[in-house]
Amino acid sequence: MQNFADRLDQAIEKKSSCLVVGLDPVLERLPGEVLAEVGVPAQGEPGWTARAASATGLFLRGVIDSVAPHAVAVKPNAGFFERFGAVGMDCLREVSEHAAKQGLLVICDAKRGDIGHTAAAYAESILGETPDTLGPVTDAVTLNPYLGEDSLRPFLDKCSTGKGLFILVRTSNPSGSDIQELQVDGEPLYLKVARLVGKWGEDFRGEGGLNPVGVVVGATAPGQAAAVRKELPEAFFLVPGYGAQGGGAEELAPFFIEGGKGVVVNSSRSVLYAFDGHGGDWRAAVAEAASRAREDLEAVRSSRV
Amino acid sequence: MQNFADRLDQAIEKKSSCLVVGLDPVLERLPGEVLAEVGVPAQGEPGWTARAASATGLFLRGVIDSVAPHAVAVKPNAGFFERFGAVGMDCLREVSEHAAKQGLLVICDAKRGDIGHTAAAYAESILGETPDTLGPVTDAVTLNPYLGEDSLRPFLDKCSTGKGLFILVRTSNPSGSDIQELQVDGEPLYLKVARLVGKWGEDFRGEGGLNPVGVVVGATAPGQAAAVRKELPEAFFLVPGYGAQGGGAEELAPFFIEGGKGVVVNSSRSVLYAFDGHGGDWRAAVAEAASRAREDLEAVRSSRV
Repeated sequence: MQNFADRLDQAIEKKSSCLVVGLDPVLERLPGEVLAEVGVPAQGEPGWTARAASATGLFLRGVIDSVAPHAVAVKPNAGFFERFGAVGMDCLREVSEHAAKQGLLVICDAKRGDIGHTAAAYAESILGETPDTLGPVTDAVTLNPYLGEDSLRPFLDKCSTGKGLFILVRTSNPSGSDIQELQVDGEPLYLKVARLVGKWGEDFRGEGGLNPVGVVVGATAPGQAAAVRKELPEAFFLVPGYGAQGGGAEELAPFFIEGGKGVVVNSSRSVLYAFDGHGGDWRAAVAEAASRAREDLEAVRSSRV
Repeated sequence: MQNFADRLDQAIEKKSSCLVVGLDPVLERLPGEVLAEVGVPAQGEPGWTARAASATGLFLRGVIDSVAPHAVAVKPNAGFFERFGAVGMDCLREVSEHAAKQGLLVICDAKRGDIGHTAAAYAESILGETPDTLGPVTDAVTLNPYLGEDSLRPFLDKCSTGKGLFILVRTSNPSGSDIQELQVDGEPLYLKVARLVGKWGEDFRGEGGLNPVGVVVGATAPGQAAAVRKELPEAFFLVPGYGAQGGGAEELAPFFIEGGKGVVVNSSRSVLYAFDGHGGDWRAAVAEAASRAREDLEAVRSSRV
């Protein structure tokens, strides 16, 4: 398969969109008609997990169909699926497969990080080729760097097969600073991590010059984005924190490489639950929110072209 | 449920054992008779994941029965189960349930770390009460601290319901030093993390004075263990790296609190595959390896009593 950085870059250009829709399904927030169609019993009742996963799958397939013209990728969040046990994992795989069929890239937000043989098992599970696992329908995965290079090596190796990585550098949650901003040699830890990512990824550059060993950098403070970009001039950035989490599109400019390249921006709840509090067709509300987000982001991206 | 630190401490005293058996099942290393009984097809063939998970479950139930008299807990490693997709998650739950029935505590080695609603979903998935998920059969989980306090809060809350945590502080892999030993204010990062863990866990102390908000500290260098113990005088330590990974029991003394308390030591491959290269009953070889490991560790633990 072609290098992930080239695939993602080409998809962005083709769709004129750097929007990623995060799939964070919370059962209580699903449209009433979806819950009614599946008939989900009260939590803890027999069959709850199967019905909850079924309703989640029905909802997310509708979301995917609605956002496919406007987004470049979806980012299913593994925790929300694991919540339903084994049937949740089947749901995650089916939803990822549906997204791939609709022409969307799939970034599995699993934030894994483990050592040796375990890291290899996770890499096979999420980016491998075994039927009935996530591997064949997943294009990229999010990873945690705390355990160092050897914990990432089995995933890095998958970049040679067309897969991509987004390694956590600076996250957008309030406590993200607890460890990530500790000062090391007069600079914050996350910049050291960014530099390490640059070293780990140096063999995987795509034909277009972008790197599939990417990073997650939250839209928390604009100066931080510029500092990380300086360390990683070629890496793809996955930027959460846009939309419901509070960041505005205008703050995203420092993330982009000249030419409006190298960035995808995630929005989860503000797209997923756009129907909330409104009447009418929920699918139309989701599609409209994705379309608006795309336009909003294109205004920033095109200012960098 | 009683505080996890009290439950674990009492189990150690009752069994005179601080041995945890890590369940890291690698299909290729299973006993030939197990593979033959299940009839596992070649990888990639239809039905491979289901048969592979089935053989893994059969093997691990035998392991659990063999080690139950000698170990205080098992530590199933989520990555090796996720490798088989959804059926692997069912296998993980069934194996955990079997261990609980055999009187073993279950530490799910998942190394999760995520933010906000996702962290809550993972906490529900692994330590919650939903039938058909891992929660009801899991006593404790391993976690990654890189995202800071709010990423751990939903798990910390579960400590009030009798569950326990082991937060990664200093891991035993060669690249563990990449980030964990970066110098912050003249001391290594992992000591800062240890101090944060102490702060996060201060409300959860058990009746016996031990803390269920524990840490993972590898047996890499003896001085490191003593330094972390100084920061966390009451926390349970989960110590990997004993046995196949290279550390010897005599190096473990600095981990213990006076009285031989506060430590569980993990051994995976040297117990799990003890039959490798030997004839005879594989179950007997596993039992004997667990018994030897227990005695080896008791010699150190009793020197601290």
